[in-house]
Amino acid sequence: MEAILKYKVSWKLRVIKCKAAVAWEAGKPLSIEEVEVAPPKANEVRIKLAASGVCHSDWSYLYEADKMSPRPFPLVLGHEGAGVVESVGSGVTKVSKGDKVIPLFLPQCGECERCLSPKTNLCTKNWQNTQQGVLADGTSRITCRNQQVYQFIGISTFSEYTVVPEDNVTKIHPDAPLDKVCLLGCGVSTGYGAAVNTGKVEAGSTCAVFGLGAVGLAAVLGCRDAGAARIIAIDINPEKFEIAKTFGATEFVNPKDNSKPIQEVLRELTNGGVDFSLECVGNVAVMRAALEACSPAGGICVIVGWIEVEELTLAPLDILLGRTLKGTYFGGWKSVEAVPRLVQEYMSGRLLLDEFVTQTLTLDQVNQAFDLMVCGKSIRSVIKM
Amino acid sequence: MEAILKYKVSWKLRVIKCKAAVAWEAGKPLSIEEVEVAPPKANEVRIKLAASGVCHSDWSYLYEADKMSPRPFPLVLGHEGAGVVESVGSGVTKVSKGDKVIPLFLPQCGECERCLSPKTNLCTKNWQNTQQGVLADGTSRITCRNQQVYQFIGISTFSEYTVVPEDNVTKIHPDAPLDKVCLLGCGVSTGYGAAVNTGKVEAGSTCAVFGLGAVGLAAVLGCRDAGAARIIAIDINPEKFEIAKTFGATEFVNPKDNSKPIQEVLRELTNGGVDFSLECVGNVAVMRAALEACSPAGGICVIVGWIEVEELTLAPLDILLGRTLKGTYFGGWKSVEAVPRLVQEYMSGRLLLDEFVTQTLTLDQVNQAFDLMVCGKSIRSVIKM
Repeated sequence: MEAILKYKVSWKLRVIKCKAAVAWEAGKPLSIEEVEVAPPKANEVRIKLAASGVCHSDWSYLYEADKMSPRPFPLVLGHEGAGVVESVGSGVTKVSKGDKVIPLFLPQCGECERCLSPKTNLCTKNWQNTQQGVLADGTSRITCRNQQVYQFIGISTFSEYTVVPEDNVTKIHPDAPLDKVCLLGCGVSTGYGAAVNTGKVEAGSTCAVFGLGAVGLAAVLGCRDAGAARIIAIDINPEKFEIAKTFGATEFVNPKDNSKPIQEVLRELTNGGVDFSLECVGNVAVMRAALEACSPAGGICVIVGWIEVEELTLAPLDILLGRTLKGTYFGGWKSVEAVPRLVQEYMSGRLLLDEFVTQTLTLDQVNQAFDLMVCGKSIRSVIKM
Repeated sequence: MEAILKYKVSWKLRVIKCKAAVAWEAGKPLSIEEVEVAPPKANEVRIKLAASGVCHSDWSYLYEADKMSPRPFPLVLGHEGAGVVESVGSGVTKVSKGDKVIPLFLPQCGECERCLSPKTNLCTKNWQNTQQGVLADGTSRITCRNQQVYQFIGISTFSEYTVVPEDNVTKIHPDAPLDKVCLLGCGVSTGYGAAVNTGKVEAGSTCAVFGLGAVGLAAVLGCRDAGAARIIAIDINPEKFEIAKTFGATEFVNPKDNSKPIQEVLRELTNGGVDFSLECVGNVAVMRAALEACSPAGGICVIVGWIEVEELTLAPLDILLGRTLKGTYFGGWKSVEAVPRLVQEYMSGRLLLDEFVTQTLTLDQVNQAFDLMVCGKSIRSVIKM
């Protein structure tokens, strides 16, 4: 008996050596390294990742660190993953070894004031810690060359294994294809939810979506599924226009093709302004344009693109006369309960997902995924571990 | 017969000589003058004004003209009046001679796309003209010393008589006391509606109202009538606090009593932020504070204070993480149909109005009314003609 217990304990405590893409410092390419992933502590879950999408935010924290609040390095980036539970720490009840899961940078503890409020999805459990790249005890579970490696927003999916808090993971359908549903860990859920949850896009409405990356295309899709009559897709890269049609865009405007400011072009196209505009770029000038493109007769502008340091300037009159400015974080979804539902929607054919994946790469090719994204040659690259 | 017709026509076309307070140029006190008020043209109504509230916007266009979009001078200010229809132009069907009315700077034609939309009250009928101080034909009906005198936002209530478009007037109960219900022409309707219509303040919620002039106090009242549990009233003039209680304020904060920024003080007082904040000052720094004082868990900031030139700067993260920024114009009320209802609410004792009137003055004392307002010695002065 004692022998068995000992075996169990030692098995539980095993450190896993595996590959991860480590960001040693800002502005430098990721480096594929052997890392050690410690066992999960109490209320933590260790996941064997199968796939991870490569999101623009990963790139931004590496290459535009000056525009973001400081994050500690070295760091394992990646926050759009899917995998299988490898082991659980003591006290874990919500998932078990072998479950297919999606790690969540936004938790849903289900107990805090915010989780109990219908108005917000912003569970703050472990928020301060995960924003600083560590888990509840103030340390990360990843080390490399004897250094602690921080876990980007508590997740770190550019790794074969990671450890996350129990409230930052959700169990999904056992048949879900992990190399597709990983996109529901961030980009697609965010853009889609921005339209259907935050903006509450209405049937028959006119919408404008700024920026046709994965988040913007998911917003286009959300507008379509909400029954919008006109969906004007806006990007300075005309190559994005063909794929935008797949997701439901009805019209395309390239700001570079117009001498007038884009907001003016859109107001002229729409008898005074759109009903809903969604900014999916993360640029304050585009945010202002998106607001000004809205109809003063009740237009709603949702900002979706992430930006931390720069400030947004606007004319109070644009608000006073009837526009509303809203924002979204993870598309307004209560993460643990919503993501499995979105997986089911995809599996039943009601939610497009495959169409976002333009490249499938290996972890060794993660820097290439960044290059493809920055050159506008990919919608989403998925890294298969 | 011909004689009678002639008499009728000449009666209809009579120019009325009366007193008005003329603003000859920005930055100079108003001058009481004899003016000529032309008869109403087609679809216009001439009103014998009984009373006019003195609103901060009147003062701003005179003394802070640099912060506002340019308005032509000479000008008769005043836009919060009540009176009796003296005569109507051809084609007028909505009001008749002898009706008690409130002139409306925001029309409700009842026919345009916006009037038919439940999302906005911004009827644009004659908008460009009235903003430029003239009626539908591009001229005003007031002259003084052989000069055209512009009509402030199409209204001009600092005059014994004025002429407004038929869509910019609403008939009210014949027993309504005009020296009280005039306040429903702007300030009280705006602040009250900002809370109940635009913010949709909820029962049991926590609210913050910035600025305790008539608009702010009306917002406090709106929060109270909507069932808010806590109404935090904020002003740098502690003399406003006693009267704020009358309207339902439960707590008072003077930013000058705190070394921390007011938004931080409010977040500490309210476990992270208020549910609803209403900015009733018209200052971009206060607007930002009001936004930042909101709870990120779905807090709604309504800007109410009018400002035209300065820009508002904010951190996108404050929006991205869950706050909503809205604005109100005339409290979101569809003017023609709502104002008579508000009059009835007042007459049946359900809407406080008398309590806003701190001074009753004559037209000759209009500059004194400005002085009292600027020194914080009045909530509303009402000019009785």
